[in-house]
Amino acid sequence: MEIIDNIKDIRDRLNSSVDVGFVPTMGALHQGHISLIKKATNENKIVVVSIFVNPTQFLENEDFSEYPRTIKSDIKICELCGVDYLFMPNINDMYGKNETLIKAPNKNGYILEGFRRPGHFDGMLQIVLKLLLLVNPKNAYFGKKDAQQLSLIKNMVKNFYLKVHIVECDIIREDDGLALSSRNVYLSSSQRDLALNISRSLKIAAKLIGTGESSCQVLEQKMRTILDIDGIDLEYIAFVDRNFTQIDTIELKNTIILVAVYIGTTRLIDNIWI
Amino acid sequence: MEIIDNIKDIRDRLNSSVDVGFVPTMGALHQGHISLIKKATNENKIVVVSIFVNPTQFLENEDFSEYPRTIKSDIKICELCGVDYLFMPNINDMYGKNETLIKAPNKNGYILEGFRRPGHFDGMLQIVLKLLLLVNPKNAYFGKKDAQQLSLIKNMVKNFYLKVHIVECDIIREDDGLALSSRNVYLSSSQRDLALNISRSLKIAAKLIGTGESSCQVLEQKMRTILDIDGIDLEYIAFVDRNFTQIDTIELKNTIILVAVYIGTTRLIDNIWI
Repeated sequence: MEIIDNIKDIRDRLNSSVDVGFVPTMGALHQGHISLIKKATNENKIVVVSIFVNPTQFLENEDFSEYPRTIKSDIKICELCGVDYLFMPNINDMYGKNETLIKAPNKNGYILEGFRRPGHFDGMLQIVLKLLLLVNPKNAYFGKKDAQQLSLIKNMVKNFYLKVHIVECDIIREDDGLALSSRNVYLSSSQRDLALNISRSLKIAAKLIGTGESSCQVLEQKMRTILDIDGIDLEYIAFVDRNFTQIDTIELKNTIILVAVYIGTTRLIDNIWI
Repeated sequence: MEIIDNIKDIRDRLNSSVDVGFVPTMGALHQGHISLIKKATNENKIVVVSIFVNPTQFLENEDFSEYPRTIKSDIKICELCGVDYLFMPNINDMYGKNETLIKAPNKNGYILEGFRRPGHFDGMLQIVLKLLLLVNPKNAYFGKKDAQQLSLIKNMVKNFYLKVHIVECDIIREDDGLALSSRNVYLSSSQRDLALNISRSLKIAAKLIGTGESSCQVLEQKMRTILDIDGIDLEYIAFVDRNFTQIDTIELKNTIILVAVYIGTTRLIDNIWI
């Protein structure tokens, strides 16, 4: 594995490569990332992982400077997974003085996560577009956990006629159901117990849908009995189709149920694809 | 020459082409465009011209619906110039419901033209990025007349690591000095006479610089004696370097002098590269 820290080298290495798989990350790699990387190494001749904690997708009051950084462990993980190039640029490599900005679509980019974190998706799309055009992969791997991000990226790829195939990867969970997230390290033991209610609520909704329930209102009420409790600050429960248009009635194979909560100062999101 | 009116066909035709020259236009082709197209046919195996009056770069009060459209003449011109593909998409081909937007850099995108036409450059960059990624040319041709546009496009190409070479093409003028523009057709005969003062003022500035004058303030005063007259509504005289940073002192080979005026309801811009 070669570690590359600048634009010129990554361009040189990938100049004539046609079968590249790409996994962009912000580091603090966990089993969720590993599942993406393994899928990429299985499906492509050359695999590039990027680690870049992207400042433009953090709001002013967010945890950019405190975001978990575990570089040594990340490098080891990439090596063990058979990554060919680990791209770790610094901020000045990725951003100049007069950057052309991306603005997420007015509607889909500013509801749900985009409503709570206005501007977050603009910065996320900006770095993803930069990285996709720099690495020029055949396949790029993103997790379903950030479902709205995934939807916006697929939309951007279509809008700008990029040839990359966006591969949607399943959410990886702990044995007890907690969706893996780099931010889980912020949770105390008791907070972690509380957090289990998130996946629990989603599973109960899925089970009810399995028995024929299709009213989003009824499902939300059931989920609220699990999530409206002391210690959990529920931000939203939402029902959307694959294009992130909000829906009232479950449509099988075209519904995502989303939850966002604060537990203490830690923000957690999870979802289930129906 | 083949006329193509949809995304699928243009992608199919250019799929494996490596030596493509591209001239994006809004139609109403004049000698300025013809000089770009001829340069492109001289320098590339395959030449694509696009004609698309892009709605997102017109402000609400601007002349989108009245913008000159001379399709028959445009097609003839492209044929005579040896264009291979004339791409004329309709609006629904280029824009869907949830478009990812481009925002010009906060500083350079919102001064001068960007200050008078806020949002104009966002829409211009959006369609140029779309077209560049769709056509994937080796060379793309833009006129120096829209100097700030050219600067922002070059900056965007750098920001997103596009491999296209942006070819800067000289301003084409009538024999009496008037810079060619699709909007010149709006001018009455007497307005056209007044408009000659624009290029006159730029030439006088260039002449003074040739004799050693380097103070932008002095040069602006001289230019104002020509442009501050009845019938001309002077918007700005500006002195910038090639990156569109405003300057006080002329630097040879790194200065652009810009003028924007209204004559009646017609907005005209011109510039000279020192």
